[in-house]
Amino acid sequence: MTATLITGIAELVTNDPAAGDGSPLGIVTDAAVVVDEGAGGSRIAWVGSRTRAPAADARTDLGGRAVVPGFVDAHTHLVFAGDRSAEFAARMAGTRYDGGGIATTVATTRAASEGTLRALLAERIAELRRQGTTTVEIKSGYGLTVADERRALRLAAEVTTETTFLGAHVVPPGSARGEYVDLVTGDMLAACAPDARWIDVFCEPASPHAFDGDEARTVLAAGRAAGLGLRVHGNQLSAGPGVALAVELDAASVDHCTHLTGADVDALASSGTVATLLPGVEFSTRSPYPDARALLDAGATVALATDCNPGTSYTSSMAFVIALAVRELGMTPAEALRSATAGGALALRRTDIGVLAPGKRADLTVLDAPSHVHLAYRPGVPLARTLEVGGTPSRRAGPAPG
Amino acid sequence: MTATLITGIAELVTNDPAAGDGSPLGIVTDAAVVVDEGAGGSRIAWVGSRTRAPAADARTDLGGRAVVPGFVDAHTHLVFAGDRSAEFAARMAGTRYDGGGIATTVATTRAASEGTLRALLAERIAELRRQGTTTVEIKSGYGLTVADERRALRLAAEVTTETTFLGAHVVPPGSARGEYVDLVTGDMLAACAPDARWIDVFCEPASPHAFDGDEARTVLAAGRAAGLGLRVHGNQLSAGPGVALAVELDAASVDHCTHLTGADVDALASSGTVATLLPGVEFSTRSPYPDARALLDAGATVALATDCNPGTSYTSSMAFVIALAVRELGMTPAEALRSATAGGALALRRTDIGVLAPGKRADLTVLDAPSHVHLAYRPGVPLARTLEVGGTPSRRAGPAPG
Ligand SMILES: [Zn+2]
Ligand SMILES: [Zn+2]
Repeated sequence: MTATLITGIAELVTNDPAAGDGSPLGIVTDAAVVVDEGAGGSRIAWVGSRTRAPAADARTDLGGRAVVPGFVDAHTHLVFAGDRSAEFAARMAGTRYDGGGIATTVATTRAASEGTLRALLAERIAELRRQGTTTVEIKSGYGLTVADERRALRLAAEVTTETTFLGAHVVPPGSARGEYVDLVTGDMLAACAPDARWIDVFCEPASPHAFDGDEARTVLAAGRAAGLGLRVHGNQLSAGPGVALAVELDAASVDHCTHLTGADVDALASSGTVATLLPGVEFSTRSPYPDARALLDAGATVALATDCNPGTSYTSSMAFVIALAVRELGMTPAEALRSATAGGALALRRTDIGVLAPGKRADLTVLDAPSHVHLAYRPGVPLARTLEVGGTPSRRAGPAPG
Repeated sequence: MTATLITGIAELVTNDPAAGDGSPLGIVTDAAVVVDEGAGGSRIAWVGSRTRAPAADARTDLGGRAVVPGFVDAHTHLVFAGDRSAEFAARMAGTRYDGGGIATTVATTRAASEGTLRALLAERIAELRRQGTTTVEIKSGYGLTVADERRALRLAAEVTTETTFLGAHVVPPGSARGEYVDLVTGDMLAACAPDARWIDVFCEPASPHAFDGDEARTVLAAGRAAGLGLRVHGNQLSAGPGVALAVELDAASVDHCTHLTGADVDALASSGTVATLLPGVEFSTRSPYPDARALLDAGATVALATDCNPGTSYTSSMAFVIALAVRELGMTPAEALRSATAGGALALRRTDIGVLAPGKRADLTVLDAPSHVHLAYRPGVPLARTLEVGGTPSRRAGPAPG
């Protein structure tokens, strides 16, 4: 076990109010962190004011930068081949998006070899780690056959434990709805469950490709029976039944939440279900943004994630999502950062990440800036990077869930 | 003289319709470029299809990436000390911006030593080069005394030839307007002109700190008499006289153009004055965006720039500005890229940059993507970087103007 003392931290965001200035971010200025590197990965041993730091075996100085908890990107679709830049350019010229473009990515993903998909996924994981993300959730959903969904989850499980079975992404072209729901909840679920922690469904009656409330309930019930936790794509295109269903079933998260009724906001506020907002989607589809202010003011827990996917939000930058949340969603820089870290951890029901406190994982992101405010204040500038303590990054972006 | 052949270019954007596919971007797929490195800097010797490339002394393969002309950031305020992150956070919580915050940066910049300012400027130049910008314009305007403005321009001239005297940024607190205009057009201009290529004025009757049309005309006339080219900050907060004045005086560029009348659009379209749009400002001040579509449809020349400054747009990312222009300004990805390269060159009246053709400067930016569309399709992701051919970057971001 090696203990490393990290100094030169102008501002440390712990997300632990008791450890810091009492604000939700738990800020310590002129701070230090001690990290223990052991066989089970790096853990936080100590955080506090630099002047009271204990001794350690090694030392790293960050030269007056801010350190924040590693970003938790709790919603991505990283297993895919091909891109849809032509569809994006057409949409920016005025073509409306209705979700049909997913079939394009399904075709290119099915046609790709396992080696190609693994290499593409490794590039994407490296890209997001370079930008400060230390935990990533990855969904299937571009296979839509038993073999292709299973392959996607096996690949995802090689790089994260936060794997989500999303066979119910869309009804594949040519399939009958009822038969496809039977397949998703039958053979496909059985084949995918061993590599999945979560099940998810695109609940959106406004899209002819997605699933209505009854279908979504069927999918989620089957997933729960197979031992999976629940997530929902809900209320993206209309104020549908997704949020109410997610809250009723105690899903860990309902994602998008772009169109909410007052009842939806109230239900989220009095639940353990996190509202995961994905403003990269609204940016890249030129759609109205969700109202984070209403959710926060009501007392709901909000997470921010990229939804990184080639159709509607091909960004892997949590810093960009934070900047958008401040500009467009009515969040303060502090609320946005907390949602991108502790909020994401809650959306994954994880207690070992999202907070920098003794015993937690040493997932540290350093900013080329003196304060977390710069993430929104300096939009588009690549300020954030994952801090590799001791230079031994673990292969997995997340540990085994507790 | 060493000739280097660059291959592995999936898409080359030349901005020369005759050299490419006939579109304004002049795109060549599976392309090659030959760069001659000589005593006077690197120049393009040849561009075209890889299969027809001539022999060369050395070779670089880019592995299937897109190459575009280096970004031309024709509007920045990079000589300053301190930041205004607290002002930013307050504004995001609802405080209106009226321009008064400039005095804060004036105070911190005056108080900084020359060595500190030079080091800060060098960091910023390195930051923007890492993000693909190869030419940058830099304004003074945080000194507002003869000695401080002169110092800013001397420092700016160490890193670029595109230096702009902006003594008429705001009337300093405590100064009488008329006396300050006399100073700017008298002793201050005389002290600054040797290190400046351009003169600029913040023409904005809606701000109590800025200058009205008559004052702006006085400043520009004095600058022209001293041999400087003309630029204008105009129509940022209201449809004021800035655009009409810029066109009348044949300024190279009028910048912001957020509030335009139909007559302003028509005047720009039939002029040699470029409309330089700065959407990072509207992003960071939560203001309505300019209407690039109206300008382009009327036939005006549009440039995109960052306005990098600590008060209203602290981004140095031209890729972010391109993504914003597509999302918010109604531009296509192709129009946005052309405006960020060839448009910026026109805003600086430069013929040696902005186009990749034989004899032009070898200012090449490579993207971690197969197409320029990805700059808008993958917002916030750091895809662009300056290509250092032969590993010998020149100290100056721009050459002596022709
Ligand atoms: Zn999604
Ligand atoms: Zn400016």
